[in-house]
Amino acid sequence: MSQALALAEQARLICPPNPAVGCVLVGADGQVIGQGHTQPTGQAHAEVMALRDAQARGHATAGATAYVTLEPCAHQGRTGPCADALIEAGVRKVVASLQDPNPRVAGQGLARLQAAGVEVEVGPGAEVARELNIGFFSRMTRGRPWVRMKVAASLDGRTALPNGASQWITSDAARADGHAWRARACAVLTGIGTVLRDDPRLDVRLPSATRQPMLVIADSQWRTPLAARLWQVPGRRVCIVGASADAGREQALRERGADVLQQPAAEGRIDLSALLVELARREVNEVHVEAGAQLNAALWRAGLVDELLLYQAPRLLGEGAPLAALGPFAELAQGPQLEYIGVDRIGPDLRIRARVTGR
Amino acid sequence: MSQALALAEQARLICPPNPAVGCVLVGADGQVIGQGHTQPTGQAHAEVMALRDAQARGHATAGATAYVTLEPCAHQGRTGPCADALIEAGVRKVVASLQDPNPRVAGQGLARLQAAGVEVEVGPGAEVARELNIGFFSRMTRGRPWVRMKVAASLDGRTALPNGASQWITSDAARADGHAWRARACAVLTGIGTVLRDDPRLDVRLPSATRQPMLVIADSQWRTPLAARLWQVPGRRVCIVGASADAGREQALRERGADVLQQPAAEGRIDLSALLVELARREVNEVHVEAGAQLNAALWRAGLVDELLLYQAPRLLGEGAPLAALGPFAELAQGPQLEYIGVDRIGPDLRIRARVTGR
Repeated sequence: MSQALALAEQARLICPPNPAVGCVLVGADGQVIGQGHTQPTGQAHAEVMALRDAQARGHATAGATAYVTLEPCAHQGRTGPCADALIEAGVRKVVASLQDPNPRVAGQGLARLQAAGVEVEVGPGAEVARELNIGFFSRMTRGRPWVRMKVAASLDGRTALPNGASQWITSDAARADGHAWRARACAVLTGIGTVLRDDPRLDVRLPSATRQPMLVIADSQWRTPLAARLWQVPGRRVCIVGASADAGREQALRERGADVLQQPAAEGRIDLSALLVELARREVNEVHVEAGAQLNAALWRAGLVDELLLYQAPRLLGEGAPLAALGPFAELAQGPQLEYIGVDRIGPDLRIRARVTGR
Repeated sequence: MSQALALAEQARLICPPNPAVGCVLVGADGQVIGQGHTQPTGQAHAEVMALRDAQARGHATAGATAYVTLEPCAHQGRTGPCADALIEAGVRKVVASLQDPNPRVAGQGLARLQAAGVEVEVGPGAEVARELNIGFFSRMTRGRPWVRMKVAASLDGRTALPNGASQWITSDAARADGHAWRARACAVLTGIGTVLRDDPRLDVRLPSATRQPMLVIADSQWRTPLAARLWQVPGRRVCIVGASADAGREQALRERGADVLQQPAAEGRIDLSALLVELARREVNEVHVEAGAQLNAALWRAGLVDELLLYQAPRLLGEGAPLAALGPFAELAQGPQLEYIGVDRIGPDLRIRARVTGR
């Protein structure tokens, strides 16, 4: 199963919005006869890839055991049902890490296998498999994406100097690592403040990048400049979310290539919770937030942040922009509470991963 | 040598202002025949303890090799010279991690050993031995203590809420760990702001504590209350450092039990650099700073901080007191630059150790 999980890991950057799944086929003699992982959307799932691999290598699949990191699908989606493919291949046993999290289909793939006389075991590698697809699980079980907020800050929590200077608080190595996290997301969310201040591209600039996450801009007054650098990324979808009526601006942004989305809440603000529901509807699993103190704070206040990805440079800046414009709180317990899930050195910086308690 | 370094580590809390040294005697047959580490001030050094240990266990020391983490002393201090004791014991060879850092005596112990026909080797374990005694080395080579600043903060760099609430940002485990770092210092330095705001004791509250570091209060106007809790620690020296003339207050503080020290600089401020020189003169090796944003900033601005010991709680607080009231800077490079030297989880918190670049 650990080999299947490693295969799933390889799929992570290419397969969203589908879950990253790995499959290893072991023949009756205990030898690995085929392996595969999820392909880009619309192409084959892991089980089919593994069966094809076995076939290409001249191995018979009858009597084999399939180790797969997620329940084989039973529905006709963009591809045929994997459960049927396994049954047709004569697989004797399927070991799956997890049931499909989609409440409407969970267990149906396994049931179909069992009905066809295939032995089924569920559980091995469950925790790792879930982490690999935390966004997919979030979308299926909560109806909203997993929200990971990325911040680069000094040891004293400043993300920019009072004059706005923030390039570069952290190292090249930390920024490259940040791109890898962007790459696994389905959408990058930023705010109009960041767009106007930094004019960022917010694309994935990695040699290995095969897809660009959609860029979502919270821009209640439709102020995104038509000449901003963010438009320069070929083939990347841009979704601008506003909270006011301005048919002219909306039309101009549409013509510039954006999806335009009205998501108003009280006081001219954007309804971020509704926005996330809409993004889930558009098959967004993970949202990678790279925004300023205002949008960050709004997301925290709405309880929408699941995870913090903090690159911490070993320097002090004193005054400057905070990570999130929260507070003032009267009691410590009013602030968001998290738990560390990983701390690593990335070049001269620290990468601190923390998850909101209870998520 | 690793055994000798482990012994030195054991001495660290009891031996200041003397350096923490470990010694292992190995007989001609390759067996360990005696071991020891530095005792509290005025008592025996590591080498003498190891010789006594060998004697008590009935081993002959003639022909033995002594592994010692610092050059044996050659001068009559509070105790007799260790070099002579080793020579008298018939030790054949001495392996020392480091020369004595005191420029006035460095090499004399080794020279005396060599003159008596003892073989001498220097170097093994040097880096660890120096770290163990970083304060002693600082005092000997720079004429000032090693300054370690301890801060407990949220992930966004806040040490207290705007209303002053700071108890407790970090966990019991982090506070206990902080006490262990206090315990190894010769002095705890705080500011009058912290005294007036929090009324702390700033003592070492650990079952294993055998000595209390001196408490040094930067209190330019002599405002330390005579009824403060800091006076309640039996046997702990308190040194109040002012920068103004007020014979009545100074006398009152003296009568309350404090050493009173005038260390004025311009504009009624305390000359922190001169204060550290004075503390080194009083045999302070390591200064453990637990202060507020103002004194912290003054120490950073004066370039006097060597190391940061940051306990970082996995929470956000938004507004509140900063780690140090630095800036505003116009460029990122104007802020203090550090390097991470260690990151550990302490209960639910992180302990981040960072050293100022070049120290």
